[in-house]
Amino acid sequence: MSASQTNSAADPPPTSIGADLHLELRGTKLRTGLTDALRNAVRTGRLAPGTRLPPSRSLAADLGVSRNTVVEAYAELVAEGWLTARQGSGTRVAPRAEPHSPPAGAARARPVGTRPRYVMQPGAPDLARFPRGQWLAAARRALTAAPNDALGYGDPRGRIELRTALADYLARARGVYAEPERIVVCSGFHHGLALMAQVLRMREARAVAVEAYGLDLYRDLLTTAGLRTPPLYVDERGARTDDLARLREVGAVLMTPAHQYPTGVALSPERRTAAVAWARDTGGLILEDDYDGEFRYDRQPVGALQGLDPQCVVYFGSASKSLAPGVRLGWMVLPEELVPEVVEAKGYGDYMSSTLEQLTLAEFISSGAYDRHVRSMRQRYRRRRDQLVAALAERAPGVRAAGMAAGLQVVLELPAGTEDSVVQAAAREGLAVSGLRDFGHEARDSGWRLPERDALVVNYAAPSDSTWKGALDTLCGVLPQALS
Amino acid sequence: MSASQTNSAADPPPTSIGADLHLELRGTKLRTGLTDALRNAVRTGRLAPGTRLPPSRSLAADLGVSRNTVVEAYAELVAEGWLTARQGSGTRVAPRAEPHSPPAGAARARPVGTRPRYVMQPGAPDLARFPRGQWLAAARRALTAAPNDALGYGDPRGRIELRTALADYLARARGVYAEPERIVVCSGFHHGLALMAQVLRMREARAVAVEAYGLDLYRDLLTTAGLRTPPLYVDERGARTDDLARLREVGAVLMTPAHQYPTGVALSPERRTAAVAWARDTGGLILEDDYDGEFRYDRQPVGALQGLDPQCVVYFGSASKSLAPGVRLGWMVLPEELVPEVVEAKGYGDYMSSTLEQLTLAEFISSGAYDRHVRSMRQRYRRRRDQLVAALAERAPGVRAAGMAAGLQVVLELPAGTEDSVVQAAAREGLAVSGLRDFGHEARDSGWRLPERDALVVNYAAPSDSTWKGALDTLCGVLPQALS
Repeated sequence: MSASQTNSAADPPPTSIGADLHLELRGTKLRTGLTDALRNAVRTGRLAPGTRLPPSRSLAADLGVSRNTVVEAYAELVAEGWLTARQGSGTRVAPRAEPHSPPAGAARARPVGTRPRYVMQPGAPDLARFPRGQWLAAARRALTAAPNDALGYGDPRGRIELRTALADYLARARGVYAEPERIVVCSGFHHGLALMAQVLRMREARAVAVEAYGLDLYRDLLTTAGLRTPPLYVDERGARTDDLARLREVGAVLMTPAHQYPTGVALSPERRTAAVAWARDTGGLILEDDYDGEFRYDRQPVGALQGLDPQCVVYFGSASKSLAPGVRLGWMVLPEELVPEVVEAKGYGDYMSSTLEQLTLAEFISSGAYDRHVRSMRQRYRRRRDQLVAALAERAPGVRAAGMAAGLQVVLELPAGTEDSVVQAAAREGLAVSGLRDFGHEARDSGWRLPERDALVVNYAAPSDSTWKGALDTLCGVLPQALS
Repeated sequence: MSASQTNSAADPPPTSIGADLHLELRGTKLRTGLTDALRNAVRTGRLAPGTRLPPSRSLAADLGVSRNTVVEAYAELVAEGWLTARQGSGTRVAPRAEPHSPPAGAARARPVGTRPRYVMQPGAPDLARFPRGQWLAAARRALTAAPNDALGYGDPRGRIELRTALADYLARARGVYAEPERIVVCSGFHHGLALMAQVLRMREARAVAVEAYGLDLYRDLLTTAGLRTPPLYVDERGARTDDLARLREVGAVLMTPAHQYPTGVALSPERRTAAVAWARDTGGLILEDDYDGEFRYDRQPVGALQGLDPQCVVYFGSASKSLAPGVRLGWMVLPEELVPEVVEAKGYGDYMSSTLEQLTLAEFISSGAYDRHVRSMRQRYRRRRDQLVAALAERAPGVRAAGMAAGLQVVLELPAGTEDSVVQAAAREGLAVSGLRDFGHEARDSGWRLPERDALVVNYAAPSDSTWKGALDTLCGVLPQALS
């Protein structure tokens, strides 16, 4: 076989596609009508350059004309330059000199500016380590074993296989009291929170207390749903849950007890107890966002708050940090009485996740691959964090890493008044990091203000191995060398 | 190798899992603390029977205790009967005499009643024909070729690979003017309609006209979003779009032009023109639900209405009929100016579909597998419909199949006043079919009423090959033998 006959791996072998082609034939002269319709489709861009046309035999059968009519029409358009025909590759739309320009609106949705060389903003795990081979193997086992009705619309709570696997895993690894009946699968924390916001509004809640540091995205979601978001101050023992009792009309509190986001502290045992006591006394709910609970490096992770009282905590987890955000699967473990309300809220948007993907994750967890992956990533991220701390000690001794040895990001305390300039200096060097101020939540209506605190939030997990050293060097280069 | 050593295909080989196990150790006596914590986890059901515990070495490292401490704790609990240990299978939670009973609420979410033997209600295609092998092959190619950032959060419009493949396919097969920039991926028609309902409300629309026959689910969605749903009468030429001008405050009209759902007629050319003229005159939108446009058996499918004027039509399609609902992928082709509004609406709920699944569908389409599958299913469904019509002619000559030779279901006209009794007779024989009345939409506020029309809506696509003959026999057995 000569080299020209081989197909590259990226280019699937040409197939004899039974392609569907819609054409409007006008008038009575069949060949002219077909030629016109095809020419028009190419000219207006409806058929893109490179598109392979159906074999003449198929198109003839579809249109109810003779095969010869189609062959002649194709030949005429090849002669005119609209189409190309090549042995073994079929008839295709010819490449165009000027590509069809995208509409003006397209630019709006695209990110602007230069792409940074290194991205250390919080959010994603190391996407290069997604276990592609094992995921595909799990998909194969899951889809091979799935009953036909798994391919239908299904239970709005999610596939039972996934809920069963999650119940087992969450009990074992996170200390969550979970039965499959109380688990609802969603597409991630954001989706789960949107569902809970709907439920809280239906219950006529007016406000959801939030931690004074967190993501604007979630506060905006609650505000859009008509809920106020009074903040709880966050210190080295986590959110001040003892302040909950002072807030009015609060139906729930949104928290990250295992690892405050993004300041990185754990909620103290006394405050865990205080949160549960508040919920029991007032009938309020604790919304526990356990976004990275699996990743703790210095000791065993803090168990889920939900374990203290499953009747007043809604527990949220997802595959976004442990696997990849692209999997788009999350889960809620609900107090029993909330299940019908959440299911109803979910039904309104028909937002259900792919059942194939749900079955794949179920198999990935049940087979032990999920545990193995988390364990392997935990070792990698721990090494990354150790390297970062060691580099700081040597090259920026005035900068302290705050918070626990856990998760995918670390808070680096900066000298007062330097946060903005360090973030900007990093950007000039092609390094994207976030300032802590981006996560601060001030209650504008009450005049309550966060204390001044200059810091960076640095994701050491996201860079791939090939960019890690460069990212770390660049970071150390822009940090102040000593506290001023 | 002896038979007892082989693993069956369904049972993955036991693996040395690096399982994560969360335990709260209390007190100072490590072994007693660990034994108590494990016993408690088993007793309360947090660790389910059969759960494999982590290897002693791993758990010891996690807890920061000696391996011997763990080995002794495991041994004690085996002796007490809480755990079992078997060479090669590790330590597991022992089976329980009484399984943990599910909470009372669980039953609520389950379907009640006996499952019918044959399901011919409209909705699903033949799930047994889902091309599992080809889908997995596409998943493998797609995931192997995907860049790392495809595993991140991504563009709210959906992956560019899928939007590009869809643009090409829809132009070719459905006559849609589509550029990838104007396509937004969603999880199905219901999700897309929910997004449009949000956008219409933001634009202060008060009403969406609907066809007088359709799904309650969609009308309810619009009503819940605060939109009235005045009906358009449906006859043998489709919805009476010339009535649109008479309706007040209508911001959009929801239609199934290629194949009215479920009556099965096509919108006539004059009415297509009238709909577009109304939209141009009033600035209203046409919401075109092209749910089964690929399936036409007697001639080439009617092209999408969107092709007449892409600036006033929102085109909706999905993989639910062509592949399977479980894929949970749909698409909207939008007028350019609507893209930012739909993207904003979508962002609120973080409703994004798995990027892995999007890449798989993109590859499935680009490789030609989608066309081949649709073509093959079209032949199957055409045969099914022919067999149904032939069986009617022979065994129930008084019952007429209405509508076009297209789609997955057919309307069977019944003698006046017999619809309910035929549906009930079918149910008694284990056959689930729907009466046409279930789809009728009467405008209660205006007193407008649908004319009496007794008919069944029968899905001939859904039964698998193994149940088809039984389903058809049962259907013929319950139909009236002649028009009374």
